[in-house]
Amino acid sequence: MKKFINEIENVEIEMFEGLSLAHPDVVTRLEDSNVFVRATKKEGKVALVSGGGSGHEPAHAGYVGTGMLDAAVPGAVYTSPTPDQVYEAIKAVDSGAGVLLIIKNYTGDVMNFEMAAELAQADGIEVASVVVNDDVAVEDSLYTTGRRGVAGTVFVHKVAGAKAEEGASLAEVKAVAEKAIANLRTMGAALKPSTVPAAGKPGFELGENEMEIGIGIHGEPGTHKEELQQADVIVDHLMEVILKDMSLDEGSELAVMINGSGATPEMELYIIFRKVYELLEKAGFKVFKTFVGDYMTSIDMAGMSITLFKVDDELKKLVSAPAKTIGFTQV
Amino acid sequence: MKKFINEIENVEIEMFEGLSLAHPDVVTRLEDSNVFVRATKKEGKVALVSGGGSGHEPAHAGYVGTGMLDAAVPGAVYTSPTPDQVYEAIKAVDSGAGVLLIIKNYTGDVMNFEMAAELAQADGIEVASVVVNDDVAVEDSLYTTGRRGVAGTVFVHKVAGAKAEEGASLAEVKAVAEKAIANLRTMGAALKPSTVPAAGKPGFELGENEMEIGIGIHGEPGTHKEELQQADVIVDHLMEVILKDMSLDEGSELAVMINGSGATPEMELYIIFRKVYELLEKAGFKVFKTFVGDYMTSIDMAGMSITLFKVDDELKKLVSAPAKTIGFTQV
Repeated sequence: MKKFINEIENVEIEMFEGLSLAHPDVVTRLEDSNVFVRATKKEGKVALVSGGGSGHEPAHAGYVGTGMLDAAVPGAVYTSPTPDQVYEAIKAVDSGAGVLLIIKNYTGDVMNFEMAAELAQADGIEVASVVVNDDVAVEDSLYTTGRRGVAGTVFVHKVAGAKAEEGASLAEVKAVAEKAIANLRTMGAALKPSTVPAAGKPGFELGENEMEIGIGIHGEPGTHKEELQQADVIVDHLMEVILKDMSLDEGSELAVMINGSGATPEMELYIIFRKVYELLEKAGFKVFKTFVGDYMTSIDMAGMSITLFKVDDELKKLVSAPAKTIGFTQV
Repeated sequence: MKKFINEIENVEIEMFEGLSLAHPDVVTRLEDSNVFVRATKKEGKVALVSGGGSGHEPAHAGYVGTGMLDAAVPGAVYTSPTPDQVYEAIKAVDSGAGVLLIIKNYTGDVMNFEMAAELAQADGIEVASVVVNDDVAVEDSLYTTGRRGVAGTVFVHKVAGAKAEEGASLAEVKAVAEKAIANLRTMGAALKPSTVPAAGKPGFELGENEMEIGIGIHGEPGTHKEELQQADVIVDHLMEVILKDMSLDEGSELAVMINGSGATPEMELYIIFRKVYELLEKAGFKVFKTFVGDYMTSIDMAGMSITLFKVDDELKKLVSAPAKTIGFTQV
């Protein structure tokens, strides 16, 4: 294992320290914790809390800030934060208007965030939650009942965050998050596995000329392994599965995210987008806005995912609204 | 070689197509060319042109936009654009106030950009140029006489771009770019080489437990290979070489960039920054602003570099000025 790290047991804590030292104007790390909140708390609005395992950077601490999250709680690498930690985050960001939890659909995350919600509700804090399950590759998986939550989660942060920033109620913010989730579909592929520092070796094996189709963001299996194909062929396949699962009409508008898994050059992500665009145009759909980059990574996995997000007028406005976070800034 | 690409000979053109289809609101690709200009030309200001080999994305097309470059000219992977291509860029962006070329110090780049300048000057366009040489690792190298230009170039784009946006003259923009270059120092290290698509295999070799110190952004050799060390030890060494080459006083303020080479997880970059911050604080220097991410990559190299940029009041203002590009947006 070759990584720029020190002692393996300090990987998370040293990353957290580095992150908070680097961006004190954007995020504050609660003392001795793994809870990141906005450097300047915004009072009187619905607060958004997300999180999950570390290793997906910039998700989720990188999405704390104006127009997106109020707090993020990264657990150990590929491991859910504990209920206590999420509970601390909820208490830190609530300002009386209620808190929405944005949870990716993994059994551990769902359980721990729901327990945190109950703890906070017992304190009289109004808490609602949504579960993101945008990955069309597989029903049920290694860590999930139902579909997994993957890169599309960033769009949920974005639109729910913009809605909360407008002063909407908890019910309204939750409703827009649910609309986003209903309109989101993602599927990915990987060429090389990631290595969790504590494991010291790659999480799965791929032959020299093999790829995994439908990969999860922790390297959990997708639909199948097959011989490496050219990018256009891979995109053809992923797009077929994604589009089959969406109800789009001629003229439907889409926000598109081509997400890199951490070790995928931007060059390749743009080559992928080129084909995605061609297929969408041919099908009579319109690309409203495109995001290309590392949004929801898997440490050092060489992989990518395609997210299609069907947007109506409300969602278009929310996707385009300003945001100022470490990982996503838009004017 | 495992990459998300199609035919190897189409890698650059398909990336260019994807990039311009993804961000039509920010950049326009001149027809059938590798010249990227702002989607909306800003008249009456000094225009900035940069470029170099492809494979360094988001450099440099990703820095075209408000507050940074007016045009970028990416050549083939790790290969300078031709004089004709740079000349086209200069003609496209000049609006009478003159054009500044920002060149990284590689023999091919310097020669081709200077030839382009001569062609444009023959047309009556006022052209000046600066050469960035921030890499302290080695004097002279595989492709360079003198020091190489590496990730610090992004700071030159930023401050010269902000100065031009203010309406400064060509001489003033050039002067601030030169001040930035004089105040910039970078050094890097790599754990794994990059693979140029047309070569089909890694550009250099590193043993299973070996790293290259002082690596260049094309994988050209640095000062030496050595056994892999912990991150803090690597940072100690790089910072010692960088700081020795700078004249800093107690209280000096620095903008810091921790740059990833393309396949380095953000997690590791923050672990690196944590140690950089500790050393700077101990030495009595002040971190003014921090940038962590993939700013000047080397395709899929697992590596990183540390850039220190000594900033005075003028440079602080220019570093902090708004920018809106694909790879660098700031409000």
